[in-house]
Amino acid sequence: MNFKDDGSLIVHSNNTLETKRSVFGVQPITADNQLYIRNNVTPPSESIVENPDAWEVSIEGVGKPRSVTVGDLKTMGVETVAMVLQCSGNGRAFFKHETSGTQWRTGAAGCVIWTGVPLRTVVENLGGVKGGAQFVTGTGGEKIPEGLNASDVIVERSVPLDVLDNILLAWDMNGAPIPLAHGGPLRMIVPGFTGVNNIKYVKRVAMTEAETDALIQRQRYRLAPLGKKGSPEYPSVWQMEVKSWITGPLEDSAAGMHQITGLAMGGINAVDNVEVSLDGGKTWEAAQFVGPDLGRYAWRPFVLSKKLAPGTYNIVSRATDTEGNQQPEVPEPNQSGYNYNGWGALGVDVKIS
Amino acid sequence: MNFKDDGSLIVHSNNTLETKRSVFGVQPITADNQLYIRNNVTPPSESIVENPDAWEVSIEGVGKPRSVTVGDLKTMGVETVAMVLQCSGNGRAFFKHETSGTQWRTGAAGCVIWTGVPLRTVVENLGGVKGGAQFVTGTGGEKIPEGLNASDVIVERSVPLDVLDNILLAWDMNGAPIPLAHGGPLRMIVPGFTGVNNIKYVKRVAMTEAETDALIQRQRYRLAPLGKKGSPEYPSVWQMEVKSWITGPLEDSAAGMHQITGLAMGGINAVDNVEVSLDGGKTWEAAQFVGPDLGRYAWRPFVLSKKLAPGTYNIVSRATDTEGNQQPEVPEPNQSGYNYNGWGALGVDVKIS
Repeated sequence: MNFKDDGSLIVHSNNTLETKRSVFGVQPITADNQLYIRNNVTPPSESIVENPDAWEVSIEGVGKPRSVTVGDLKTMGVETVAMVLQCSGNGRAFFKHETSGTQWRTGAAGCVIWTGVPLRTVVENLGGVKGGAQFVTGTGGEKIPEGLNASDVIVERSVPLDVLDNILLAWDMNGAPIPLAHGGPLRMIVPGFTGVNNIKYVKRVAMTEAETDALIQRQRYRLAPLGKKGSPEYPSVWQMEVKSWITGPLEDSAAGMHQITGLAMGGINAVDNVEVSLDGGKTWEAAQFVGPDLGRYAWRPFVLSKKLAPGTYNIVSRATDTEGNQQPEVPEPNQSGYNYNGWGALGVDVKIS
Repeated sequence: MNFKDDGSLIVHSNNTLETKRSVFGVQPITADNQLYIRNNVTPPSESIVENPDAWEVSIEGVGKPRSVTVGDLKTMGVETVAMVLQCSGNGRAFFKHETSGTQWRTGAAGCVIWTGVPLRTVVENLGGVKGGAQFVTGTGGEKIPEGLNASDVIVERSVPLDVLDNILLAWDMNGAPIPLAHGGPLRMIVPGFTGVNNIKYVKRVAMTEAETDALIQRQRYRLAPLGKKGSPEYPSVWQMEVKSWITGPLEDSAAGMHQITGLAMGGINAVDNVEVSLDGGKTWEAAQFVGPDLGRYAWRPFVLSKKLAPGTYNIVSRATDTEGNQQPEVPEPNQSGYNYNGWGALGVDVKIS
């Protein structure tokens, strides 16, 4: 992991690294060396990113299924999207009930720029979507450890076919070949969907009639009520929700002018506006977005300039998306602690003296 | 320079490093470790970026002139701009006449994100612009070597006061404190103006009635006709021009589908559209912009998807800005070789077989 900046990250384990809240500031784009890492399964050998153009992905459920290399994909088309990449469990630590899994706070998220070919272009080149398909199913290139049941371990996820036009098969992140830790040589990018749906080292993309039967789809990443085990009767963790959090000030400081900053995202929709409260949500003021708008799936940094007198402040932010969905104070809990977006716990307490 | 990626750069000297054309691709943002470097004078000691918040800048020509630290500036306001940073001499190698100075081709340019406080906010905090001022004059923090006349060496530039509202006093580049090589701890950012006007390690910002008398303003960076020496009778090198160049394919390759890519910028204006020609400008086709629009001062990557039969191609691109200014085939020459933007020489020749 020597390409990561140690000072910017909280290390939960060698497969779970979180970006510190203090490094986000008003950055529209998260630097590679500060971006969180979360792997479900041990990644494949580093050797697969030595010659990215040689990596093969099998395209199935199309008129003329076949394997194509990344080199082939680069001749077919090119598109770029700025997107919030966020772990499904980001903010899990803020749920009141006990959860297993990494206790992420704000930092299992980043906004990055992906470049690749639209999956729609690839599918059209290969004869179009086969009749009856209802899902796009991506399979990761992880090795299945011996002695384990493949479907219990394999990273294979299905997303609804109606997002096909948004999906990229991406080879670059932030302008450089995607590092192995982030899914290189090729990652299936599903803008607006949580991290797990963005399949790393993708080796197969299939238009399928049914969702995959893999455990990671069938049982894990389900929004099950408290006390219930995940199963297909509960919704999959797919689209992200409207959300925002404060990135500064984070420490007790002196009275006077302050720039209260944060990040706001719409998830599957664009973010429309964000408000800030200094008194834990009793009164709100509109914050201003800072810098360029990188599109529907990106986050937007925001600021409220404020003169702060000595005192104690509970600073919180509340975003609303373009569909009118607003961050709740406390979200409905789900057993595994996915999609946390409550404005109450995402705030900060600072003492000004 | 160990924070730079050697493989991405052409080293002209230790103060002049150029980004290779092959690394640009369709990147909306240029990574720090690939960004060109050009210093007029040896930079100050690295120690000045150890505690960026302590750096002081003197604000003059305002109602209440005083020195402020970067720490102070951070309490006053925050804004972010994506901007093409381009050396005045970028493309000098393409002029037909002999020029002294670095023979830059396409790579003394990058698109980066700056964060800082609007200079307007600082000026208003200090009592507003003093009557009679017509320029914003910034002074760099370089040490003047002993025995030299300060005004011959000092990096001090004046820009018209009417761009005051665009100027940032910036402390971050691409989300991290500005490295010394790029002007940290504080740089005066003048969006749409060539590199030299963006004063590094800025130690003084003054609203002045006249342009500075420094050699770098009076004689250097002037658009003098061929055979003439720079002087105040000729225009200063200030605003950038509309421009584009091809970033791929750069090498001979196989017949079939190709993604012809490039970058287009409007300079002081936004870029409106870009066309591509495969036959050296005889016939043109509209290219498509790729990825998010980062605003007026950013560049936009573009692509034309094309099936190429065996043959030899002179691939060129021609951008037009929102004011209707179009890249010329060959620009009017100027003695020192500034502001090259001719579409003819900026193209590439490739053989497809």
